[in-house]
Amino acid sequence: MSSPSEQSPPSGFRQRLHEIIFEADTPAGKAFDVALLCAIILSVLTVLLESVPLLRDRFGAELRMVEWFFTGLFTVEYVLRLAAVLKPFRYARSFFGLVDLLALLPTYLSLLLPGAQSLLVVRVLRLLRVFRVLKLASFLGQAEILLTALRASRQKIIVFLCGVVSTVVIMGAVMYLVEGEKNGFDSIPRGMYWAVVTMTTVGFGDLTPKTVVGQFIASLLMIAGYGILAVPTGIVSVELAAAARRGAIDTQACPGCGVGGHDHDAAHCKHCGTALHPS
Amino acid sequence: MSSPSEQSPPSGFRQRLHEIIFEADTPAGKAFDVALLCAIILSVLTVLLESVPLLRDRFGAELRMVEWFFTGLFTVEYVLRLAAVLKPFRYARSFFGLVDLLALLPTYLSLLLPGAQSLLVVRVLRLLRVFRVLKLASFLGQAEILLTALRASRQKIIVFLCGVVSTVVIMGAVMYLVEGEKNGFDSIPRGMYWAVVTMTTVGFGDLTPKTVVGQFIASLLMIAGYGILAVPTGIVSVELAAAARRGAIDTQACPGCGVGGHDHDAAHCKHCGTALHPS
Amino acid sequence: MSSPSEQSPPSGFRQRLHEIIFEADTPAGKAFDVALLCAIILSVLTVLLESVPLLRDRFGAELRMVEWFFTGLFTVEYVLRLAAVLKPFRYARSFFGLVDLLALLPTYLSLLLPGAQSLLVVRVLRLLRVFRVLKLASFLGQAEILLTALRASRQKIIVFLCGVVSTVVIMGAVMYLVEGEKNGFDSIPRGMYWAVVTMTTVGFGDLTPKTVVGQFIASLLMIAGYGILAVPTGIVSVELAAAARRGAIDTQACPGCGVGGHDHDAAHCKHCGTALHPS
Amino acid sequence: MSSPSEQSPPSGFRQRLHEIIFEADTPAGKAFDVALLCAIILSVLTVLLESVPLLRDRFGAELRMVEWFFTGLFTVEYVLRLAAVLKPFRYARSFFGLVDLLALLPTYLSLLLPGAQSLLVVRVLRLLRVFRVLKLASFLGQAEILLTALRASRQKIIVFLCGVVSTVVIMGAVMYLVEGEKNGFDSIPRGMYWAVVTMTTVGFGDLTPKTVVGQFIASLLMIAGYGILAVPTGIVSVELAAAARRGAIDTQACPGCGVGGHDHDAAHCKHCGTALHPS
Repeated sequence: MSSPSEQSPPSGFRQRLHEIIFEADTPAGKAFDVALLCAIILSVLTVLLESVPLLRDRFGAELRMVEWFFTGLFTVEYVLRLAAVLKPFRYARSFFGLVDLLALLPTYLSLLLPGAQSLLVVRVLRLLRVFRVLKLASFLGQAEILLTALRASRQKIIVFLCGVVSTVVIMGAVMYLVEGEKNGFDSIPRGMYWAVVTMTTVGFGDLTPKTVVGQFIASLLMIAGYGILAVPTGIVSVELAAAARRGAIDTQACPGCGVGGHDHDAAHCKHCGTALHPS
Repeated sequence: MSSPSEQSPPSGFRQRLHEIIFEADTPAGKAFDVALLCAIILSVLTVLLESVPLLRDRFGAELRMVEWFFTGLFTVEYVLRLAAVLKPFRYARSFFGLVDLLALLPTYLSLLLPGAQSLLVVRVLRLLRVFRVLKLASFLGQAEILLTALRASRQKIIVFLCGVVSTVVIMGAVMYLVEGEKNGFDSIPRGMYWAVVTMTTVGFGDLTPKTVVGQFIASLLMIAGYGILAVPTGIVSVELAAAARRGAIDTQACPGCGVGGHDHDAAHCKHCGTALHPS
Repeated sequence: MSSPSEQSPPSGFRQRLHEIIFEADTPAGKAFDVALLCAIILSVLTVLLESVPLLRDRFGAELRMVEWFFTGLFTVEYVLRLAAVLKPFRYARSFFGLVDLLALLPTYLSLLLPGAQSLLVVRVLRLLRVFRVLKLASFLGQAEILLTALRASRQKIIVFLCGVVSTVVIMGAVMYLVEGEKNGFDSIPRGMYWAVVTMTTVGFGDLTPKTVVGQFIASLLMIAGYGILAVPTGIVSVELAAAARRGAIDTQACPGCGVGGHDHDAAHCKHCGTALHPS
Repeated sequence: MSSPSEQSPPSGFRQRLHEIIFEADTPAGKAFDVALLCAIILSVLTVLLESVPLLRDRFGAELRMVEWFFTGLFTVEYVLRLAAVLKPFRYARSFFGLVDLLALLPTYLSLLLPGAQSLLVVRVLRLLRVFRVLKLASFLGQAEILLTALRASRQKIIVFLCGVVSTVVIMGAVMYLVEGEKNGFDSIPRGMYWAVVTMTTVGFGDLTPKTVVGQFIASLLMIAGYGILAVPTGIVSVELAAAARRGAIDTQACPGCGVGGHDHDAAHCKHCGTALHPS
């Protein structure tokens, strides 16, 4: 960490800044991250509270002030981040750089466009950075497993969604024809909205079939939705199990070729045939 | 692909047509499929938009024109498909042949029966053909796994549905007796509709128990529905796991010790170390 | 089947009756079962239709007649069943005997108590008998697997339900205190009904929290319900997988002691140590 | 159990008390536990019934009397428990000690604060003690497996909940901007409440999107919720499977070849045939 460019003051200063802002190994870096975490949560809470009419009427000015305070703070932090890295432009275009910028803009935008500060809730995304920086290793490992499982099931999920969308379009049209405008199904897109609400078992009830035929078709759709709901669950379960299994295997490495990922009951390396140490 | 009947012009023309329309190996075939994909999506969108009262009032004539344009296009395509195959009648009776025909009829039907063009959404089914023709191999493989899993659980699902239907009939009658007409349960079929809405956890709320006894019975049904909902999910999960296992492993067997169940990337048997045949 | 008591006419007649009514091996027995299946479905449909006010007003007399016709038929069948078995009283007390009787009583009861014929839907339970008699072997095997899985998870499910009931009671009381009578939560049992509707994700919407605190507590309950819903699904999935695995093992039997249920990779009987035949 | 301090009368009395109240091995201890179980259930039922306006008006005095009777009973029991243990303060601070105390307070509190007796439902938690004391071994084993599974998935579930909360905050703000106050989304927290109701598929319908854009965003959220709902189920399924596997197998290892993973009913090693030690 305390490597090369210690000689030149600006570079040394930049490195120190980098250590504090981007890393969490030093006490200063850790303190910065905890403070950042609190600031983010408080600033999001401010936005939430400001949107409540009652509170806005009574504490509007104070809440706006707090908002500007946090925006100022985060602006300084953003500038410091740009200063701390060797390639500021690359940081600015990275995922976290964009999130950091997006978390600032709405307040400035609200000068021109009242109400835009509601978009400040995008700041919750900044929490992701803190997760990463705090090096919550095992938590991240778990998130990794979840993401791996979801990525592995990506194709199955796309195929599944295509099926769902087709069903939604067709059911939306059918209900539009069967129920018609007088029962609220005044267009196919409206019928599709109803089909999504029904198939996902959300069932708001703002739009419901009134005719006997419509209720019968709806019943069939709901019972089919039963089985359909099972598919993504099954997919994710299987992939999670596979990811967990892969996680369980990880520790062994072949003494011959060094390749890992062997099954628990493997006696020989599956790549080079060298005998593995018994576990 | 470029086999037998190259000599006779009509047959050569038919074969060329077949290559373009039914296959996706040549650039022309690929271009045709992409164009078809776009045309289908646009034509479905037209139908959706035409069903919105506001848009129909303003752009009705234009949208109808677009619809007739696509119907004309698909009619030409249908005739070409008939011409491109050796046994047109067999194609016409196949699943895809019927879908292609059904995707045309509603527009013509709407001349006699206004409103029938809503049935045009059946065109989304035509997308299935594009999926097949574009040879999205891995996607299709995944769809295959999903279908295999569903087919393998078919019997369990039928047994399960019989149980669900019996419960629905009995609960519908019980709620009809308990709640009665004054609370909206005006017939057993209406009660069955409510039972389906409740057991599938959709819960529209258009029909709800009002009496204490009815609410108690409904509570029992909902808690039972909890466990019941678990059954199809469990079935599909298990079958998906089995399908994935079969897909991942089944084929290899060690030439040395004959033991199977090797991973796809295994070069040596994990039990005796003998080199496996490259896959 | 065509064993002992062929000599005495009454006994021979009883045996013939038994073959037709209780078994499905002979053509006559099969025909009887199919006819019974149809009669049950038609009689249940009659009950459903009779409960619809519009149809009752127009075809009330006819539907009542059909109902009496089927009740008469099933009464004759019940008497024949009693005559066909050697120990009629034991049959009458068996599960199927009771169902057969319960399927008759409501019609007779409706002479004293109008409306009681709605209970006739209990006849759907009679379909279970037909399932058994038709010897739909593989279907029954699947049902067996499902039931085994549910039975094996019985204890886990009871523990789980105890947790659910405790949560429901406590949440019902909390919402009764927080929301109070003016928002519809007019007693703890009413609050419990709401908690069940919410935790099972049914969400009718006939009773919803109106206060900010109530909506916050409800949000927590719903997110917790997310995780809770996962438990029965997980339980059933695991048990189904175990049942399927057990089903997969079934075929091997030890040449030494004849005991089955060995794993696929077993080389020696786990009970007596005899070497198994390689599969 | 009947160990050391038999000589001194108070200690002998205390030990006898301990045996009856805290254990379930002696007939007296068992009888005490069953009586306690009934008393708890009856006292909870009393609280439930008292909250129903109709019953409170007619039997209010009687129900209050029953409540005081049970509170008196449980107070005596609490004092006896304090007397029966060697370190009363440690018991009073333990989980069960606190629950026992909390189950008493509301009645006394209701003298100062009418209505506080609704909190008495906290008594259902006391049932947990009875479960433990009655030594329902296999039930507890199952509960243990469930808890182990949940604890093992704790990190994954926290990561998952963070994702859910972020989505809820962002969707709440988006719907607040899109739908606005006129459609009931009068603040971001209200929008978050709606997002929770929708993502968990509860769908009360007290707050629904009215604009086309809002319904479109809601549809996307619901379809995403489909996949999201699959994650906790998958997590719990995998952990339950792992817990079951560990429970079923872990302990045995062959004395001959050292290979583990034998079934519970195995008498011989399935790999080498050596007799296993009886479990």
